[in-house]
Amino acid sequence: MTQAKTLNPIAATFKALKCKECGAEYELTASHVCEACFGPLEVTYDYNTLRRTVTRESIQSGPNSIWRYRSFLPVATENVIDVGTGMTPLVQANRLARRLGLKKLYIKNDAVNMPTLSFKDRVVSVALSRARELGFSTVSCASTGNLANSTAAIAAHAGLDCCVFIPADLEAGKVLGTLIYSPTVMAVQGNYDQVNRLCCEVANTYGWGFVNINLRPYYSEGSKTLGYEVAEQLGWQLPDHIVAPLASGSLFTKIYKGFQEFIQVGLVEDKSVRFSGAQAEGCSPIAQAYQEEREFVKPVKPNTIAKSIAIGNPADGIYALEIARKTDGSIASVTDAEIIEGIKLLAETEGIFTETAGGTTIAVLKKLVEAGKIDPDETTVAYITGNGLKTQEAVQGYVGEPLTIEAKLDSFERALERSRTLERLDWQQVLV
Amino acid sequence: MTQAKTLNPIAATFKALKCKECGAEYELTASHVCEACFGPLEVTYDYNTLRRTVTRESIQSGPNSIWRYRSFLPVATENVIDVGTGMTPLVQANRLARRLGLKKLYIKNDAVNMPTLSFKDRVVSVALSRARELGFSTVSCASTGNLANSTAAIAAHAGLDCCVFIPADLEAGKVLGTLIYSPTVMAVQGNYDQVNRLCCEVANTYGWGFVNINLRPYYSEGSKTLGYEVAEQLGWQLPDHIVAPLASGSLFTKIYKGFQEFIQVGLVEDKSVRFSGAQAEGCSPIAQAYQEEREFVKPVKPNTIAKSIAIGNPADGIYALEIARKTDGSIASVTDAEIIEGIKLLAETEGIFTETAGGTTIAVLKKLVEAGKIDPDETTVAYITGNGLKTQEAVQGYVGEPLTIEAKLDSFERALERSRTLERLDWQQVLV
Repeated sequence: MTQAKTLNPIAATFKALKCKECGAEYELTASHVCEACFGPLEVTYDYNTLRRTVTRESIQSGPNSIWRYRSFLPVATENVIDVGTGMTPLVQANRLARRLGLKKLYIKNDAVNMPTLSFKDRVVSVALSRARELGFSTVSCASTGNLANSTAAIAAHAGLDCCVFIPADLEAGKVLGTLIYSPTVMAVQGNYDQVNRLCCEVANTYGWGFVNINLRPYYSEGSKTLGYEVAEQLGWQLPDHIVAPLASGSLFTKIYKGFQEFIQVGLVEDKSVRFSGAQAEGCSPIAQAYQEEREFVKPVKPNTIAKSIAIGNPADGIYALEIARKTDGSIASVTDAEIIEGIKLLAETEGIFTETAGGTTIAVLKKLVEAGKIDPDETTVAYITGNGLKTQEAVQGYVGEPLTIEAKLDSFERALERSRTLERLDWQQVLV
Repeated sequence: MTQAKTLNPIAATFKALKCKECGAEYELTASHVCEACFGPLEVTYDYNTLRRTVTRESIQSGPNSIWRYRSFLPVATENVIDVGTGMTPLVQANRLARRLGLKKLYIKNDAVNMPTLSFKDRVVSVALSRARELGFSTVSCASTGNLANSTAAIAAHAGLDCCVFIPADLEAGKVLGTLIYSPTVMAVQGNYDQVNRLCCEVANTYGWGFVNINLRPYYSEGSKTLGYEVAEQLGWQLPDHIVAPLASGSLFTKIYKGFQEFIQVGLVEDKSVRFSGAQAEGCSPIAQAYQEEREFVKPVKPNTIAKSIAIGNPADGIYALEIARKTDGSIASVTDAEIIEGIKLLAETEGIFTETAGGTTIAVLKKLVEAGKIDPDETTVAYITGNGLKTQEAVQGYVGEPLTIEAKLDSFERALERSRTLERLDWQQVLV
């Protein structure tokens, strides 16, 4: 640690786009594929400068949002879009921990991320800040729902034109939660992978900034903040084990990159963190590759209630696989019924209402503990990435009904008596 | 300002319950009505101690939640329930300001409050922390929806038994967003005022802690944090004008109390702030009293889509009325159609999706600006108190539909052309 700085250094520390496969370097334009080998491009930084200029204190004196880590984000302008995104609670989940038989469990709660209640607000805040400085006036995305909400909302705040693409069968809350911001919404008859292919064509034809296509190298860096924040919130140290959902695999790899960068610049001590990933059985190409010990990910056709992570052909699947293997983590999948149980378990024990992706994470967490793949003594962090109010269909019918009563004391008392009798019966069934 | 403290003082600075009408004082038990005159009880503090011990720095070094103001909250224990509630963004709303013709407008955005996305998380965090130290093991509430969500969630986190009472006709999102935490839910056939009367009877009969009945003096203090935070986020100064929704009137009076307390202990400079209140025309007993220059509030039967603020017999109505009058503010009401427009306007300009109560606030803000009752030069803060994902019914049918397309470039291009033609037609209509 060097001495405290009052401001984050503004001078851009991101240097180039670099192919993850062949290492070829490119200028910092709106492109995402290596011209030489078609590998994905990633942003590189000047870590020597970062090591010299960034301290725990300089970060802590920054804004209470992802922009406290701006030196590690690929945006040059001072005029970033800051709508309070990030710095979501890291909740010590004692009641859930006891239920699962863990000693130290935390929930990183992006179900309350700002402004649109999912981790996508992180990547979109970065992508649109970058889009603006690259001169785009129209922004777009291929989305499973949360990304559409986030892109439409943050574009509205920033005054950018916006056109989003979603699969036509999305949950009502995700469609309404996009339309409300008045973007153009294209509902594509097909699954996410088809939406994504169409968007790649559109991106090549129109001069639009697609956050997760031509802006993807910048966009995806936003997920690193989910690593930084956990490290800072744990008192500048890394956890022992993390569990996160796998859709494209990008989130998983970027949390890893975030931890590695903090180690590299000396903000936390070096430590190995186990990375475990969660998928829904109805769309589990990465979990299947893991189970079958394959080196490649075979695309699947999604069929699950966990629509926000239903990516059958995950762009960063092999990188996620590699990280789970080399950190001694696991990748597992759970059924739709287990996902609903996961949502309910987290709500009942911790008062956090998550969407199907979060239910997947909690159900996989439970499964891994039961299989002995998470040690009770490990400090474990489960990443909850979205809010349950957006996928109400998934749990409607599984949470019971209110007891309808008249506005009279005796009507209430009869209902209370009935509910207590039912509860006792429930317990007797448990005990039998 | 005295010198910086590293910790907030923990010694309890709240001293008694005092009748707002006759001034009689009572011990700090679970009671809310004066035995002498039936006036409401309010918590008093030792402001001399607060002035000596609390500084801007001591507050800033506290947690990033309402508990940074714990010296001003009626809880003695160190073991408060902190789930990250409060410290929501104060968004500089430049695009909305331009649309309305204001120069400096801020949105205090409790649509993203934690954990359940409304300002109620503030009052419930305080009430349940106090309930626990008073020895209650079952907590309850009479709710229009948001309070039920919050009580159920925070009780789940804290491991308290919970029974909530709601009107039977609530929005689906608010019912599901309560049931998910597994409390007992009583859906009362009647409006909120009937629910509330029933709960008063139950509170007298059962040894439960009703957050907004027998714990109301403690509970309501939580709303003061909406005053404190705005003052701190504006750089330790007060705004010129605030606009907030009026349901029971409690929120309004407590923001006022918060500002007054900060002046009294020297945390901000003395300044008069104008207080304007917003009601839905279908439930506007306070606005009616204001218009008719009455000294009393005549109860009404609610009939509006703004269910979360549909209180026909508002407990703190006369106090809200008094504050609006003495600060040279206004109280106005808007139709359901204007509420929907208010929701859309805030979403389109600022990327914030609020529920009907927030739509009411924005619509009244607009109305007051148009009527010349808010000066364009005033620094104005509009309080957004809840999230739009909970009242989706209200805007469904008013936000348009996605453009359904095939997963082909030409299908997209035809749809885009159609939408642009429609937009041009829209503009031509505007210009005609």
